[in-house]
Amino acid sequence: MEKSVPVYERLAGVLGGMIESRSLRAGDRMPSVRHFSSQHRVSVPTALRAYVTLETRGLIEARPKSGFYVRARQADLTPEPVKKSAAPKITALRNEDPAASLFADLTNSKLVPFGAALPSANLLPGIKLTRTMAAIGRRLGADSISYDASPGSEALRRELARRSLDWGCALQADDFLITIGGTEALSLALRAVCKPGDTVVVEAPTYFGLTSILRELKLKALAVPVDSSDGIDLESLEKTLRKNRVSACVVIPNVHNPIGFVMPEERKRRLIEICASSGVAVIEDDTYADLQYEGPRPRCLKAFGDDSVILCGSYSKKLAPGYRIGYVAGAKWQARILALKQASTLNGPLLPALAVAEFLKNGGYDRYVRSVRQEYRNQVEQMREAIAESFPKGVRLSRPKGGYLLWCEMPGQVDALKLFKQAREAGISIAPGPLFSPTGDFRNYVRINCGHPWSSVIERAIGVLGHLVKRQCGG
Amino acid sequence: MEKSVPVYERLAGVLGGMIESRSLRAGDRMPSVRHFSSQHRVSVPTALRAYVTLETRGLIEARPKSGFYVRARQADLTPEPVKKSAAPKITALRNEDPAASLFADLTNSKLVPFGAALPSANLLPGIKLTRTMAAIGRRLGADSISYDASPGSEALRRELARRSLDWGCALQADDFLITIGGTEALSLALRAVCKPGDTVVVEAPTYFGLTSILRELKLKALAVPVDSSDGIDLESLEKTLRKNRVSACVVIPNVHNPIGFVMPEERKRRLIEICASSGVAVIEDDTYADLQYEGPRPRCLKAFGDDSVILCGSYSKKLAPGYRIGYVAGAKWQARILALKQASTLNGPLLPALAVAEFLKNGGYDRYVRSVRQEYRNQVEQMREAIAESFPKGVRLSRPKGGYLLWCEMPGQVDALKLFKQAREAGISIAPGPLFSPTGDFRNYVRINCGHPWSSVIERAIGVLGHLVKRQCGG
Repeated sequence: MEKSVPVYERLAGVLGGMIESRSLRAGDRMPSVRHFSSQHRVSVPTALRAYVTLETRGLIEARPKSGFYVRARQADLTPEPVKKSAAPKITALRNEDPAASLFADLTNSKLVPFGAALPSANLLPGIKLTRTMAAIGRRLGADSISYDASPGSEALRRELARRSLDWGCALQADDFLITIGGTEALSLALRAVCKPGDTVVVEAPTYFGLTSILRELKLKALAVPVDSSDGIDLESLEKTLRKNRVSACVVIPNVHNPIGFVMPEERKRRLIEICASSGVAVIEDDTYADLQYEGPRPRCLKAFGDDSVILCGSYSKKLAPGYRIGYVAGAKWQARILALKQASTLNGPLLPALAVAEFLKNGGYDRYVRSVRQEYRNQVEQMREAIAESFPKGVRLSRPKGGYLLWCEMPGQVDALKLFKQAREAGISIAPGPLFSPTGDFRNYVRINCGHPWSSVIERAIGVLGHLVKRQCGG
Repeated sequence: MEKSVPVYERLAGVLGGMIESRSLRAGDRMPSVRHFSSQHRVSVPTALRAYVTLETRGLIEARPKSGFYVRARQADLTPEPVKKSAAPKITALRNEDPAASLFADLTNSKLVPFGAALPSANLLPGIKLTRTMAAIGRRLGADSISYDASPGSEALRRELARRSLDWGCALQADDFLITIGGTEALSLALRAVCKPGDTVVVEAPTYFGLTSILRELKLKALAVPVDSSDGIDLESLEKTLRKNRVSACVVIPNVHNPIGFVMPEERKRRLIEICASSGVAVIEDDTYADLQYEGPRPRCLKAFGDDSVILCGSYSKKLAPGYRIGYVAGAKWQARILALKQASTLNGPLLPALAVAEFLKNGGYDRYVRSVRQEYRNQVEQMREAIAESFPKGVRLSRPKGGYLLWCEMPGQVDALKLFKQAREAGISIAPGPLFSPTGDFRNYVRINCGHPWSSVIERAIGVLGHLVKRQCGG
């Protein structure tokens, strides 16, 4: 008599077949072990053994406190983008802003939304938040239209102060100023620290809005290369600061845009030391930090060097884009920042600030972020796998530690600006690499927004993109 | 038999006595003729004759479409402030911003509110407007937290375009950019037209926020004197532009802050000619124009010179301070202004913009403004009369054509900054004259906010102010 196949092996075989045939896709969450055992009328240990078998075969992976997920196997074989090694040069940004002409397309709602860094409205708690705002408005009555005099809502600043403990800081409500989104926070921070003509170190690649801000403030940029998993190249930074007179260094250490890395703590500490020893102010963009997939909330740079770090943050990218709630904790520059704010926008809208404060206070934000992080993680995984499958050999993909953005290096002959145009004609928006560098580098890179739930529209669009890239490769 | 006193004379005598004894006060609205006739059981013609008698005696005045009001007789004898005649000089604004230290006191809600230019929340349609916003939020659901991508809500820009006909212009929705209040509109306009170090003509006196904006943009100011009833001194302006290289001229032609004049049309036309012939951009602050007490809505400068005029406006001062809705129509500089906006605040809050658009569209705004204008007029009249009575001889008062601000020239020996401190100790906030000039002129002037309904608190505060001024005069 032939030895019969154990039950767990049989189950693993069935599930494996579903994964091979894409009935279960990369990033999909497997049913819980308990649920699976009861559905298939097997014991919990048997169900668990089936999962472990799949895990051993590299088909699924366990994520702490979250369960089992189908692995992105193609994507796992895909390497990360390589660090640019060219020596940083000062760039004067005298040219036209390339972002200006692309901006409308990035947010054009008729295109498949891989361009702007924005999640689907359906993943944001818009209904709840706006209901909260309406309730606050009713409560305030005639006072609901009052000025929210700078530095802005104390209720919100108190919540930020409370949260700052979680960021490794211990800030007071008075250390914060509420801004019109992260853009105003960064712009005020740079204006407080620099004067026109000064040079600012940025990461290569970096958030493209930053380049527009530098341009309009008549600041020069010095782009220091970034490693896909570790962040800014500290050796290169050190050399750069020795050779050049620099006023500020702007970095995105936690859940970087566009790459998604989180800087290791010892490197954060070292970055602060390097900048401090050259007397360079550090401006930290902390926008996406709450969206790290695993582990405790990453600590801010400010936790390692309070006095020299201006912390900028925003709830636009993770909660409510249209509420325009950002903040800045400006250390010794705070009084300057306040004066600049009063002469540029005076103060911000009251009700959106109070609604965000309430959502932070009553736990709504934490519950929301805990669940949406996993959705973003899955969406990014699915996108990585789909790109690994559809794009030509030689493609490299970032492995984001959080958020919903993906940084993709394509073969050297691909021109991302050309791809941008071709994609737009095909009804797809993408963010071409040259936007992410003041020097227009990253010609063959593209950032892909994964903020929308997987769908056949997205699936097809990735197929079309892959086709366009292959065509540029002469394939 | 003695000839008996006619009924209308008797009635006029009674009313006159009430006015003399202050039972009816300057600025109070008289009962309507119809109401008065029925209350006193006399015919309408008799009642009307009584009123006309009082009018002839200078005790009351008729206002078109509004009825009869008690005249401010003391105030009517009080002359307007005199135009400064010193030759304009370029001011570099290198000193600390004097407004910065006063700012908190100007808006401190524990003080009697003569400082900031702000109406009482009870006179603003906050409850209605916030209800409108909540309804729009419900309708939009998940999309209520979406970005309002620049140039900002089309619904609002369409309403502004429609209204521009009323301003003597014919602007399109695309001519407008929505801003964070009037402050951002002015700041962007100046940044688009000037570069650091440039010189800008302003009025003396002018809105004090403007000086802060110039200071932070590193612009120099050239303050040209203003006539209390006619606006900027055109002869002085012409000479100034011949002698100096100037990049922009910022004026408040309609319901000036702090004086309240409306420039006559022929002077508006001439101002445009003068600036055009020197190639100077005109930046027009139109914030208070809708609050003119009488006659059709005054035309904008832009109506007289579309291409060279940047129109800035705001709903903060007349509708909803905390909504932060302003706008700019930047003529040929519009693309620059848009680029600057994207690099400083990216875009504005969506729901407040939609709520204001709806209020403009459904007629709510027009109904509201029609009624509140008369309240402001009365409040200003009462304030003028009270000041004329309480302040020492030699005081001069502006005669505002709209709005809720009063500009007051005190005897030469009075120091308004000292008065500011003394008043604050007495629980009263005022806006001292030197704030209204980049050179710190107007030492003996003060701006009084009349945005709050008359009350015994206000009455007493004016008494205290008068006492403090008299004390400074050694009286």
